[in-house]
Amino acid sequence: MEFTINQVAVMLGGEVKGNGSDKINMLAKIQDAKKGQIAFLSNPKYEQFIYTTKASAVIVKKDFQPKREIESTLILVDDPYTSFTALLEQYHKMLTFQKSGVEQPSYIGENSSVGQDVYRAAFSYIGNNVRIGNNVKLYPHAYIGDDVIIGDNTVIHAGVKIYSGARVGKFCVIHSGTVIGSDGFGFAPQADGTYKTIPQLGNVVIEDHVAIGANTVIDCATLIGDSTIIRQGVKLDNLIQVAHNVEVGKNTVIAAQTGVSGSTRIGENCIIGGQVGIGGHLVVANNTGVGAQSGVAKSTQEGKRYNGTPAYELRDWFQSYAHFKKLPELSTRIKDLEKKITQLEGAATVDAKR
Amino acid sequence: MEFTINQVAVMLGGEVKGNGSDKINMLAKIQDAKKGQIAFLSNPKYEQFIYTTKASAVIVKKDFQPKREIESTLILVDDPYTSFTALLEQYHKMLTFQKSGVEQPSYIGENSSVGQDVYRAAFSYIGNNVRIGNNVKLYPHAYIGDDVIIGDNTVIHAGVKIYSGARVGKFCVIHSGTVIGSDGFGFAPQADGTYKTIPQLGNVVIEDHVAIGANTVIDCATLIGDSTIIRQGVKLDNLIQVAHNVEVGKNTVIAAQTGVSGSTRIGENCIIGGQVGIGGHLVVANNTGVGAQSGVAKSTQEGKRYNGTPAYELRDWFQSYAHFKKLPELSTRIKDLEKKITQLEGAATVDAKR
Amino acid sequence: MEFTINQVAVMLGGEVKGNGSDKINMLAKIQDAKKGQIAFLSNPKYEQFIYTTKASAVIVKKDFQPKREIESTLILVDDPYTSFTALLEQYHKMLTFQKSGVEQPSYIGENSSVGQDVYRAAFSYIGNNVRIGNNVKLYPHAYIGDDVIIGDNTVIHAGVKIYSGARVGKFCVIHSGTVIGSDGFGFAPQADGTYKTIPQLGNVVIEDHVAIGANTVIDCATLIGDSTIIRQGVKLDNLIQVAHNVEVGKNTVIAAQTGVSGSTRIGENCIIGGQVGIGGHLVVANNTGVGAQSGVAKSTQEGKRYNGTPAYELRDWFQSYAHFKKLPELSTRIKDLEKKITQLEGAATVDAKR
Repeated sequence: MEFTINQVAVMLGGEVKGNGSDKINMLAKIQDAKKGQIAFLSNPKYEQFIYTTKASAVIVKKDFQPKREIESTLILVDDPYTSFTALLEQYHKMLTFQKSGVEQPSYIGENSSVGQDVYRAAFSYIGNNVRIGNNVKLYPHAYIGDDVIIGDNTVIHAGVKIYSGARVGKFCVIHSGTVIGSDGFGFAPQADGTYKTIPQLGNVVIEDHVAIGANTVIDCATLIGDSTIIRQGVKLDNLIQVAHNVEVGKNTVIAAQTGVSGSTRIGENCIIGGQVGIGGHLVVANNTGVGAQSGVAKSTQEGKRYNGTPAYELRDWFQSYAHFKKLPELSTRIKDLEKKITQLEGAATVDAKR
Repeated sequence: MEFTINQVAVMLGGEVKGNGSDKINMLAKIQDAKKGQIAFLSNPKYEQFIYTTKASAVIVKKDFQPKREIESTLILVDDPYTSFTALLEQYHKMLTFQKSGVEQPSYIGENSSVGQDVYRAAFSYIGNNVRIGNNVKLYPHAYIGDDVIIGDNTVIHAGVKIYSGARVGKFCVIHSGTVIGSDGFGFAPQADGTYKTIPQLGNVVIEDHVAIGANTVIDCATLIGDSTIIRQGVKLDNLIQVAHNVEVGKNTVIAAQTGVSGSTRIGENCIIGGQVGIGGHLVVANNTGVGAQSGVAKSTQEGKRYNGTPAYELRDWFQSYAHFKKLPELSTRIKDLEKKITQLEGAATVDAKR
Repeated sequence: MEFTINQVAVMLGGEVKGNGSDKINMLAKIQDAKKGQIAFLSNPKYEQFIYTTKASAVIVKKDFQPKREIESTLILVDDPYTSFTALLEQYHKMLTFQKSGVEQPSYIGENSSVGQDVYRAAFSYIGNNVRIGNNVKLYPHAYIGDDVIIGDNTVIHAGVKIYSGARVGKFCVIHSGTVIGSDGFGFAPQADGTYKTIPQLGNVVIEDHVAIGANTVIDCATLIGDSTIIRQGVKLDNLIQVAHNVEVGKNTVIAAQTGVSGSTRIGENCIIGGQVGIGGHLVVANNTGVGAQSGVAKSTQEGKRYNGTPAYELRDWFQSYAHFKKLPELSTRIKDLEKKITQLEGAATVDAKR
């Protein structure tokens, strides 16, 4: 992944001022950059660094007027920040998808098919009857159970475990240690105090453009033919629990360490904070917001923000909490009132006797 | 795993009506079923589907009287729901235990023994001096440290890590990413502000019929000869933390993301909600219930239900919480009282002066 | 790992009484010890066991006067408890570092270097351009991404995943299933309700003498050149979430299942309880204490202890909580006051009319 400055300028639609044949292989901040790296100058506060930076190239605004000599080659663009961000995204994509081919030893079962430009790292495991799309990346110790389907351009990081029968869409990213399709927590109490396992025979379906953090768990649905579903564009952080038969709606975002209990349906475009608990068999309406560490025990109304355990509307909760902080004072005031009342009652009695 | 309808009917003690020689390989809901699948009809609400289903066979009640022609073969039984559930369980068991033999590459250390019908997947690791019982299933990337013993019919899913010296009973299921026997969190503060590691030399003992979810962690006991113990029939959900020297009593059930601190003893038949925290060195009595997200800071009494942080009896806590919600109103009422008292005091003073 | 009693006595600076040529290979409690094991007697309450123990050797105080015959060989020292603890630590170190050499199959990429006495277990994976110090132990299924550096004497347990570019110091221990360097949770909302991924290009830096529990996650920093930093001597428990660009100061201790949001800086020598949530972009001052399950929403002051969600000073919070428990009673008292006031007002009106 090495480009000449001229090549980068073409990518950005910019103009080169200086030696465009030098090579760059890395992006950096202007104050940290070394030879072989490219930086940008957008905020005038950082202008001082352009005169001392070791960067081989700096992206600057078209109308930038240097006050002193600059050693770096310049690339002139309309908006340096946007150009640098575009470069970052390009760089990130290249980093993510640079791995390709098959490292040994890796394992692939019977009747499984693998697309073009797939990376199958050493110690990656593909079971039987699996279909892996084009440009999928399976990092080391990834486990893909039997009958799984994974769409194009999806990245499965090291040590992800996907149980049999799961479906993962296109352009998904699943981070290390995440488990997809483990058994739902279903046990029927017996008369003798023991529990009988309820067979968990459904699967997990993850649609396109879903991102899932590290060490998160998504359980399979209970019944054959049913699915725990993560809809298109959902973003799940690390260490999240998604129980059996849950559905998470389109473009909903859930922060780390939150847990969603069985059979709950979360709507679209919700924003759920970290360490939230959501009860079972609820409906969380579209555009619901839930504050960190809250416990949602009832279904929610569209567009509202909730807080507390059990959660109710955020504004009301904060008012109660403000008074909670003043409870010792409120208690003292009640005591004072009681004293005064007793005095007044005494006076009134005296008065009545008069 | 393919059976003729006649074979299934024998398993269920049912009677075949139609062609019993067709083969089925999958269970399904009556409204979704395809050729080669078996469904059931119990609730009359679903009767309409039996006339259109593609299922090769449908399990129905003995006295079922079709109103129209049915293409599927029928299996007549006393209770279709119970029969179908039995079939589901059988199917689940077969799915779970169908894998067998040794995939390559897999690793086994010195002096380790492995029973009959064991599955050792590719990339599974067995250390030295390990004893693995009959019909144990080790999925890919399972790690079994030195000196571990695993009982018959136990399933260790992909990527489970079991540290040296642990004991796992019979008929256990441990889901992906779970860690058994990592070091307890023990550090002794030193005068210079640093911490010295307290060696963690005990082990973990898991008795029979225990189910453990995904990405859960059970730390080993601190002292040589001591154990963190999970008793018979315990069910632990995903992402649970069980600290060093904890004991979880028989048939206790703990929901996801709960944490139990060091040296606490949890009794039998307790039901602990999700995201609960339980302090260290406590005794949680038999049949204790703890509500989700609660924090247990004191030992509990048998048969009682607790809630809140710190937790106390559920009923009392809910009453307090009801008043918490009304705190802004209570505060206003106190203000009103204060105003009125001031007025009354003023009146009383005037009155006294008269 | 077998020593003669004489060798152990030399290690402890003690004196042997009895047969010093017998071999021991294990430490045990005096009441449990078997032949080939060594125990200690410090607390006089346990003296009875020394006359019946099967231990090959017992460490006792110099001036210990047996009341009856003892079969075990004695090692006389100044302080048996301290000596036994030293032996435990030695034993633990030996256990931890006993593994060495390369098991097959294991994987190592291009341009990677490995120090002396390194253990590379079967199914361990080392990427390209990695530098592994001396005496590092990589257990099975450990994943070390490209360009990672690991210092001397660090132990990477089974199934740990370290993403590209991370730095891990000397004398660190990282337990199973922990993920270092996964992407930070960064998504920019778009006009159409979808989210665009913000490339995460920084890394994670872990300094020396850091201990990290099992299934914990530490995300990488967002920008190139930035790091999520875990300072020297930090101890992190299991299932902890450390978000992008967080810094955890020297010798800070964090208990299990706690989460720290992005860009927050935690000071030195803090003690953070379990299941705590800490908001983003905060400064947690040195020597801050935070109670279990608290939610820290504001920066803290040095040396203070916090509790609650949102957290404030512990002492104040406990006072409020004491009143929270009494809220039903406070409410009744307010009702009583209101009744009495009404009566008094009635009386006052009558009085005024008189």
